Amino acid sequence: MALIVQKYGGTSVGNTERIKNVVARVAKYRAEGHRLVVVVSAMSGVTDNLIKLAKEIMPLPSEREMDMLLATGEQTTIALAAMALHAIGVPAVSLTGAQAGIVTDGVHTKAKIQNITPKRVHALLDGGQVVIVAGFQGETLEGQITTLGRGGSDLTAIALAAALKADLCQIYTDVDGVYTADPRIVPGARKLSEISYDEMLELAGAGAKIMQLRSVEFAKKFGVIFEVRSSLNDNPGTIVKEETKSMEDVVIRGVSLDKNQAKVTLIGVPDRPGTAASIFKALAEAAINVDMIVQNVSHGSGTPTTDLSFTVDKPDLLKAQKVIEGLKKEIGFRQVTANEAIGKLSIVGVGMRSHSGIAARMFDTLAREGINIDMISTSEIKISVAIDLAKAEHATRVLHQVFLGA
Amino acid sequence: MALIVQKYGGTSVGNTERIKNVVARVAKYRAEGHRLVVVVSAMSGVTDNLIKLAKEIMPLPSEREMDMLLATGEQTTIALAAMALHAIGVPAVSLTGAQAGIVTDGVHTKAKIQNITPKRVHALLDGGQVVIVAGFQGETLEGQITTLGRGGSDLTAIALAAALKADLCQIYTDVDGVYTADPRIVPGARKLSEISYDEMLELAGAGAKIMQLRSVEFAKKFGVIFEVRSSLNDNPGTIVKEETKSMEDVVIRGVSLDKNQAKVTLIGVPDRPGTAASIFKALAEAAINVDMIVQNVSHGSGTPTTDLSFTVDKPDLLKAQKVIEGLKKEIGFRQVTANEAIGKLSIVGVGMRSHSGIAARMFDTLAREGINIDMISTSEIKISVAIDLAKAEHATRVLHQVFLGA
Repeated sequence: MALIVQKYGGTSVGNTERIKNVVARVAKYRAEGHRLVVVVSAMSGVTDNLIKLAKEIMPLPSEREMDMLLATGEQTTIALAAMALHAIGVPAVSLTGAQAGIVTDGVHTKAKIQNITPKRVHALLDGGQVVIVAGFQGETLEGQITTLGRGGSDLTAIALAAALKADLCQIYTDVDGVYTADPRIVPGARKLSEISYDEMLELAGAGAKIMQLRSVEFAKKFGVIFEVRSSLNDNPGTIVKEETKSMEDVVIRGVSLDKNQAKVTLIGVPDRPGTAASIFKALAEAAINVDMIVQNVSHGSGTPTTDLSFTVDKPDLLKAQKVIEGLKKEIGFRQVTANEAIGKLSIVGVGMRSHSGIAARMFDTLAREGINIDMISTSEIKISVAIDLAKAEHATRVLHQVFLGA
Repeated sequence: MALIVQKYGGTSVGNTERIKNVVARVAKYRAEGHRLVVVVSAMSGVTDNLIKLAKEIMPLPSEREMDMLLATGEQTTIALAAMALHAIGVPAVSLTGAQAGIVTDGVHTKAKIQNITPKRVHALLDGGQVVIVAGFQGETLEGQITTLGRGGSDLTAIALAAALKADLCQIYTDVDGVYTADPRIVPGARKLSEISYDEMLELAGAGAKIMQLRSVEFAKKFGVIFEVRSSLNDNPGTIVKEETKSMEDVVIRGVSLDKNQAKVTLIGVPDRPGTAASIFKALAEAAINVDMIVQNVSHGSGTPTTDLSFTVDKPDLLKAQKVIEGLKKEIGFRQVTANEAIGKLSIVGVGMRSHSGIAARMFDTLAREGINIDMISTSEIKISVAIDLAKAEHATRVLHQVFLGA
């Protein structure tokens, strides 16, 4: 008899029929003798609808009131899910984030979980109930309703699994698990049976949309082993866990392509200390995430200048250009250019640490395909390159063939 | 500078445009220097939609989960209302029922307010905020979300006004106030500038739809003076307050017609002690409200039998007939009949106490119009008769003419 935390996203609970499917799965696990805590998101579309209402009232509503508003989405789902369990004879009780003891800081719309006191969850489990918990939300010590931001329901599930010392945490989603590459791009992509936290983090950071970084980080920090699997079938998913020795035998775990980045280049930047610091400080203050950064030395006559390139998420491009234009006087660069037609291609694997020559093999492969590399960035277990978007899917397939053999 | 509690119903906050209208009024009062607590209902249609979702899942959902579900309706409105105030530059904070300190018993879907600890409301008011409170909901001491049942938002407003010792409590609705009769039936009906709690109670009990009985009872118990007025214009409404000496000068405050009752008659009931008790106990156990009751002595040969008639709300008629049929063996009556074509016509006024002959004048008036009286019931300040539904509106106009002169 295990204690299992399951999380179902907005699509899985998108209407009452789907909620009935979800609880049928919950009931099956319970019939096998397990104790269950079920974390659910808002029904798909509900959150967008609430945001639309808020925008009808004002363009930038107070974040405290947005939390008050959005928290109703998950609260609706938990009540319906509990009813759906009752309808098939399974005792169940719904709890809001606050009722489940999820205590957060006071940073509305992106609060951090500070502490979980799952007294009430424990008592209900002991009483034989399935406990349905609203994902994505919590409460400050002062009793303010907060939300956890994007991917918040995953975080709720993983944090609850940690606090409850659950035997298993299952993240149900609309994909079967984590793949060696996006199967829509690489037909031979395979589902991974397991992956390390670090690899999962690098894949998520490289644009794989399965989970938000911070949920994986949280799981890593607290050693929560979780499984990513589909709510549409009974296939086993991918287990995400601490790295094991045998994982290093596989050089590359996966290839990922992020088409959502844009490149900004500052041409003719005077080569003075502190210039890069000014630029990235200004971008950070505007809450713009910078991913890859490359600086080239320019060999010109007169004052030495350099070219500086970086990538940002496409939706942030205009904002980033505005920030940079605002620095023109202070820094004195010659020109800014932007390029949205790039793809960021990454290979990820803990095996890189113990295998040499991976980067060379990657660059060589791309060169033989006539693909020019625009930017390069590396971590201990990831190599990313920015290349022409038009060639990016082809390059993904070629790298998958070379490193993963299909 | 007064402390004012305002309550706006579901129609008044039915969409974001209407919410903007509501907060414009709130802002106007605030600009005059008043402190404001604003209680809002769920946007019209929202509660029905939630109920529909629940019914898709099961016909009779758990009341605890219904409360969890329905409480989201008001929570949505408070957030939007606070945002709408921000949009016009007025500081405002929304509070759920629980956050506003509304403590109830644990009777889900029709919880009673046990206590209000408005510490947080006071602190926010002291900080210059308009406080927006979710109507209709509260929390038990154990932290369960509850709802107060029909008319619950009025109750929230009146209870908060009592707890805060507010100077004024305004119930905004879609009518201008309390009228001497329904203006759709009696064109000469006049808006009353004031009415006593007891008269308001009798009018509500007699079918006037403005407010639920228990909100008025609560106001009477705690001496909360409130005003019923329209959210669509700036006309003064009707003040509801403790009876004053001068109120007795008016014999009849209003005439009301309830077309929502049905009459059940048991024919040939053996005249034994305890028979009536059995019948009305069984109806009470089925949660059927009985209004008027009349018993006639039948003069037959053999065992003395009587005929017993009572009225119930029309939607309860089938259920009531079923209950009665179930008692046939035990009680041994001859036959049950039902009549939905009745109207309950009432005249109400504290002046009745000091003026004699009111009932005679009422019956005489109806007789002269050729209207047969089916049943009669009286209280200290109300006389009700059940008559043929087809003649009920005409009778209402005639009584209004006789007692209220228009």
